[in-house]
Amino acid sequence: MGLVQEAKPVAFHRDLSMLPKPLSANSLYSSAGDDSKVRISFQGIPGAYSETAALEAYPNCETVPCEHFETAFQAAELWLVDKAVLPIENSVGGSIHRNYDLLLRHRLHIVQEVHLPVNHCLLGVPGVNKEEIKRVLSHPQALDQCVNSLNDLGIQRLSAKDTATAAQTVASSGKKDVGAIASVRAANIYGLDILAENIQDDANNVTRFLILSREPMIPRTDRPYKTSIVFSLEEGPGVLFKALAVFALRSINLSKIESRPQRRRPLRVVDGSNNGSAKSFDYLFYIDFEASMAEIRAQHALGHLQEFTSFIRVLGCYPMDLVR
Amino acid sequence: MGLVQEAKPVAFHRDLSMLPKPLSANSLYSSAGDDSKVRISFQGIPGAYSETAALEAYPNCETVPCEHFETAFQAAELWLVDKAVLPIENSVGGSIHRNYDLLLRHRLHIVQEVHLPVNHCLLGVPGVNKEEIKRVLSHPQALDQCVNSLNDLGIQRLSAKDTATAAQTVASSGKKDVGAIASVRAANIYGLDILAENIQDDANNVTRFLILSREPMIPRTDRPYKTSIVFSLEEGPGVLFKALAVFALRSINLSKIESRPQRRRPLRVVDGSNNGSAKSFDYLFYIDFEASMAEIRAQHALGHLQEFTSFIRVLGCYPMDLVR
Repeated sequence: MGLVQEAKPVAFHRDLSMLPKPLSANSLYSSAGDDSKVRISFQGIPGAYSETAALEAYPNCETVPCEHFETAFQAAELWLVDKAVLPIENSVGGSIHRNYDLLLRHRLHIVQEVHLPVNHCLLGVPGVNKEEIKRVLSHPQALDQCVNSLNDLGIQRLSAKDTATAAQTVASSGKKDVGAIASVRAANIYGLDILAENIQDDANNVTRFLILSREPMIPRTDRPYKTSIVFSLEEGPGVLFKALAVFALRSINLSKIESRPQRRRPLRVVDGSNNGSAKSFDYLFYIDFEASMAEIRAQHALGHLQEFTSFIRVLGCYPMDLVR
Repeated sequence: MGLVQEAKPVAFHRDLSMLPKPLSANSLYSSAGDDSKVRISFQGIPGAYSETAALEAYPNCETVPCEHFETAFQAAELWLVDKAVLPIENSVGGSIHRNYDLLLRHRLHIVQEVHLPVNHCLLGVPGVNKEEIKRVLSHPQALDQCVNSLNDLGIQRLSAKDTATAAQTVASSGKKDVGAIASVRAANIYGLDILAENIQDDANNVTRFLILSREPMIPRTDRPYKTSIVFSLEEGPGVLFKALAVFALRSINLSKIESRPQRRRPLRVVDGSNNGSAKSFDYLFYIDFEASMAEIRAQHALGHLQEFTSFIRVLGCYPMDLVR
């Protein structure tokens, strides 16, 4: 909340981030070293899943809560923090287009990815047991993801702004019959007991987060890297095929592809005829490919892609998260 | 809610939907005829955006609220209703993987698509004016999509289960200083005044809904059709490229492509080496292509695709929504 007010007066400084900066590949290895000075902004309040993701990447970092995603970006751009963390897709919910938009509107670079298995916990005030809980507070999406478990326990669902706020509300109410669905970290922060772990109905519920930085990471070839790009294609049959050929011809694997109608003109228009020749508008494509920009084949692929796209941007090149 | 209880005892009848059914192409044109008997299930309570989408497709239909998406599907499969409506993607939020999963787990067919521009309205009890509203209830995603408008009005945001429930709650509370963000239809149903329309920050906020039916529509070639398919690819560089070639070679345009790690194994595993050869798991791909299955080129394309995919399913072939 505070950051919103602080960031606004200095908004004209935002293009500071356009100035040349000393580049560094060290940040990649910082979790082995001194990351206690790293400050990472996230959207939400303490105990949010985004905060857990930041701590996975930098166990000793200082996390900085922001009310909005926009603020989390600005905090990094204006040097108030070093990095920002952003949820980008979930195995059940899908890609978050809105957050891709933020990546396009801002100039931060992806320097790391974190796959965080979702662990929805049933939390209650200290000393309470599971059977005493009659109602539970959480974000509607978290409630939806736990419908079967909650029905089995005969627990009624109530909406909250987000999971961490739910935990905070339950803790401050002190009510024994009201629980929250939130993270392990939220339980620790707000002094709640964990009555059950992993109560989500779909066991394979994983969220992918990105760590963003003002400076891009200088990629190497010493480990598996992934490169995220976004580009536009103008129209018609075969153009996407050509775009993918630039990767296939160089044996570069894709780990993600997603089309997206343009933000400002997401619909289509008919040209008046009735024979299937609806006019296509521009599309954006998001692709993650499995190669380092330090490899010559990746450079050639992007050079080739640029021959027939009006817009292309590398969102970041970073080590693949192979741990989870 | 009632449907949940009713559906369970007859769950063993679900494979009724596997029996051969008389096919019909008439339903496509029903909005011109007698669609007053059509019953369409939707997730939510009256006033939900899904209900508005159903009424766009069938203006005189009877809409049947269901507590869960699963129930809405079952209602159609068990002949309790004729069709179901399902939100599948939003221009701001992205694709809803969870609802694609439902399409795969059930055997309903897509027979129509509806692009519904989101119109978030600020609602209040009758006679109140905008300046009196101090707090507003809605689904967190709707609140997020209206942050700027609400901040300008100095209105505090409170979470509700969904937009229609928010409207219902405000109406029954009778409080003058509490508003709701919900649809025009919700205002009418719950007797609230519309204090402002289209208060979402992003003017181009469109949700795509699918109308599902037990019987597939028999496609023709008299108007632009779209076909939605899902298929799996086993591994490696170039396979997706080959899959797209089957469309490109036949000049068939794609309007959507999206990769998705498999539901039951969404992550990847390293094979022990450190040279970038992480083992890929299966991927699912969702593709919408712009052709009718009544066209021979579409049939050839799917035949060709089947040569190198272990799984392929046509989710439906239906007229393109070119109106909006």
